[in-house]
Amino acid sequence: MAIMPVTDSMFLLAESREHPMHVGGLQLFELPDGAGPDYVSEFHRQLLSLVDVSPLFRRRPRGPVGSVGQFAWTGDDHLDLEYHVRLSGLPRPGRVRELLELTSRLHGYLLDRHRPMWEFTVMDGLQGNRFATYTKAHHALLDGVSALRLLQSSLSEDPSDMAVRPPWSPRVRTDVFGSAPRDRDHDSAFDPVRAVTELAKEVRGFGAATVKLVNEAFREQSATLSFQAPRSMFNVPITGARRFAAQGWPLDRIKAVLKATGTTMNDVMLAMCSGALRKYMLDLGTLPEKPLVAAIPMSLRTDRSVGGNAIGLILCDLATDRAEPLDRLTTIHESMLRGKAVYHGMSRLQITALSALPLIPLAVGTIPGMIRITPPAFNVLISNVPGPRKPLYWNGARMQGVYPLSIPYEGQALNITVTSYAGSLEFGLTGCRRTVPHLQRLLGLLDESLEELEKAV
Amino acid sequence: MAIMPVTDSMFLLAESREHPMHVGGLQLFELPDGAGPDYVSEFHRQLLSLVDVSPLFRRRPRGPVGSVGQFAWTGDDHLDLEYHVRLSGLPRPGRVRELLELTSRLHGYLLDRHRPMWEFTVMDGLQGNRFATYTKAHHALLDGVSALRLLQSSLSEDPSDMAVRPPWSPRVRTDVFGSAPRDRDHDSAFDPVRAVTELAKEVRGFGAATVKLVNEAFREQSATLSFQAPRSMFNVPITGARRFAAQGWPLDRIKAVLKATGTTMNDVMLAMCSGALRKYMLDLGTLPEKPLVAAIPMSLRTDRSVGGNAIGLILCDLATDRAEPLDRLTTIHESMLRGKAVYHGMSRLQITALSALPLIPLAVGTIPGMIRITPPAFNVLISNVPGPRKPLYWNGARMQGVYPLSIPYEGQALNITVTSYAGSLEFGLTGCRRTVPHLQRLLGLLDESLEELEKAV
Repeated sequence: MAIMPVTDSMFLLAESREHPMHVGGLQLFELPDGAGPDYVSEFHRQLLSLVDVSPLFRRRPRGPVGSVGQFAWTGDDHLDLEYHVRLSGLPRPGRVRELLELTSRLHGYLLDRHRPMWEFTVMDGLQGNRFATYTKAHHALLDGVSALRLLQSSLSEDPSDMAVRPPWSPRVRTDVFGSAPRDRDHDSAFDPVRAVTELAKEVRGFGAATVKLVNEAFREQSATLSFQAPRSMFNVPITGARRFAAQGWPLDRIKAVLKATGTTMNDVMLAMCSGALRKYMLDLGTLPEKPLVAAIPMSLRTDRSVGGNAIGLILCDLATDRAEPLDRLTTIHESMLRGKAVYHGMSRLQITALSALPLIPLAVGTIPGMIRITPPAFNVLISNVPGPRKPLYWNGARMQGVYPLSIPYEGQALNITVTSYAGSLEFGLTGCRRTVPHLQRLLGLLDESLEELEKAV
Repeated sequence: MAIMPVTDSMFLLAESREHPMHVGGLQLFELPDGAGPDYVSEFHRQLLSLVDVSPLFRRRPRGPVGSVGQFAWTGDDHLDLEYHVRLSGLPRPGRVRELLELTSRLHGYLLDRHRPMWEFTVMDGLQGNRFATYTKAHHALLDGVSALRLLQSSLSEDPSDMAVRPPWSPRVRTDVFGSAPRDRDHDSAFDPVRAVTELAKEVRGFGAATVKLVNEAFREQSATLSFQAPRSMFNVPITGARRFAAQGWPLDRIKAVLKATGTTMNDVMLAMCSGALRKYMLDLGTLPEKPLVAAIPMSLRTDRSVGGNAIGLILCDLATDRAEPLDRLTTIHESMLRGKAVYHGMSRLQITALSALPLIPLAVGTIPGMIRITPPAFNVLISNVPGPRKPLYWNGARMQGVYPLSIPYEGQALNITVTSYAGSLEFGLTGCRRTVPHLQRLLGLLDESLEELEKAV
């Protein structure tokens, strides 16, 4: 038994029925040649036959322990693999619609704290010679980026490799995490709750000079926007049910736009989101007059004296008030440049502090009534996580796509997480089912948005 | 908005991640002649097209409200029918095994308190020209018996009746509840939490004579057993995950045994349970030396001066220490007679009080550590709820079977609820997944147990 670091236990403390604190991933696989009708249930049976489980996937929370109510990690000696590794079916006709419906539902259920907090669901009955898997892990155990890398490291680039082991197998390389798996330098360290917890821990060590610098930088950052994020339909209290939508677009289409406009991959991705959100909110009659503000975590090089990378949170003007797609893209591009410039020359500690400030309302969001009275620092969290470039295989089954599922927060009802995989940009949209109605519509609107950009350049 | 009666809100207060407080039902239907491959998804689509929902199924809890933390019932004006009425698929090969696996999982998830607390899942992909439905309702909204009666009243005895409406339709007769739907006289009023809450409410009105009588009756009731219920594997703290198993046996087989032995339907049902539990625990090496004690809620005629029926809790010696099936049946029969005799001549109030006493540990079971130190008043709760005698149809689809899912409590990891339907005795076993391993084995053992009784008479 080991006392859990505060950065882990925060996710257990912050969790409630309305705010599950787990991340997920949806993976689509092609059935390999010659796969029979029982291929998927056989795949599941094989997973259950591999009874070795690595210590990471055996640990479960215990607590609160001790006089100060800390949580601890403890090992589960009676791991019930059948509980964690599940087989589900889709109802007919087994389209992507039915797949997303089931995935949405699974992502809304709380994980059982009496067991290691992860689940892996194999999904049978998908049309078009495919099957899917949904992975789910509590954020206290594994964050989304680590989960993605772990899956990636378990798969093979070789279609004829039949020795692929599931992510929880002790045979899977875990060096994907680098030397320190939960190190703050790592992309994966970014998360609202974690960022604020880090800040709270480190703020004690701040000298007066640091506090002054962060305060000034915060004013400067706010000044880059020249306006306050408007109140919007996404910045309200949320409920427990989730809706998930996912789709991929060819990277080549996005690259053509960025080359023609001198912008970045991230800019074009944000412009797609901007166009889609604008139309979505226009249709619902909820588009604010002022443009929406997105918060985008980005890996930044820091002052050389500290070394390494740090994650900075950029507040970006999404220009949803502009009707022209290229206007929006240009505004986004400039806003991102200004946002990054604020962090120039800062130490990692300063970056952490500055990034955490706009996230404090999310971290304290579980206090009832808070969200209604505090204006949002931003309207939507959009993350872009680099993924594998080459196609990956699970015992010959080619992974067609991989889509991240994230955590909506009180006051942040929609999360957009994007990753790249084998020539495709994969969008995963996770929303509160009640607050973000007809989330699937955003997929069609993202597509329209990209088409408009293509026509405009 | 109406303040919720304490008998309803108790179920919300007593609920935690580990103790979901909802009841459920699994219904099996035959596909009608000529049903195409999309029959089940079409059935689901039709349900969604009936947008009228009765007030009972629109109300959701609001609270705690007011200074004393009471809950209230409020109406949901934005009922999201697609959220409540779901379509699920079974993985191949779609046997009863896969059906029970999915049902177990669904029964372990908490209901969303932001919405009316019920769900109806249509299940596609079942072998043998069948489909299934799983109904789930929070105990604060509807108890198991009421839910069963409501379903029953929504179905038709006429296979050609194509005007069947789902249980939540305002067109469904609700007179099945009788004049007072949540009246204590009703069978449905029986539940550990409710019984104890009733007791707490009424104890203030007890005169000294009543207290004396109940105390004496409790001593007498305990004396009928001449021993204390042993500690057993079922009387421990539980986890949140559930396992469900269900099967029906022809009533004729059970009637043949009761006629040959001069016992009752209930006695033979209990003897089946006794034989199965004995063998299950012997296999696991956990059979206590002393016999298990079952608690059985029964409808009792009360002292004529009070009128009506009341639910009494009978503590029955299950004779699991005896190897001979007929010995067990005889012991059970005699124990039930003695248990009923205790209640003879009592008023309804006295019956309520006496029945509530052994249930207090369950009602206070959410206090950590309580269960470990308190010896159990009984080992397993077994309920027998009368069901419909004639076959029922949903727009021509014959209901083959209906199986109740109940609530395991802290310290009571296994619940057996039995109902009758169209010539069959339908067993529903709901257990904590961790505490009651391989629950499905009990089905085979129940079958063996009935066969042994048949051979012995």
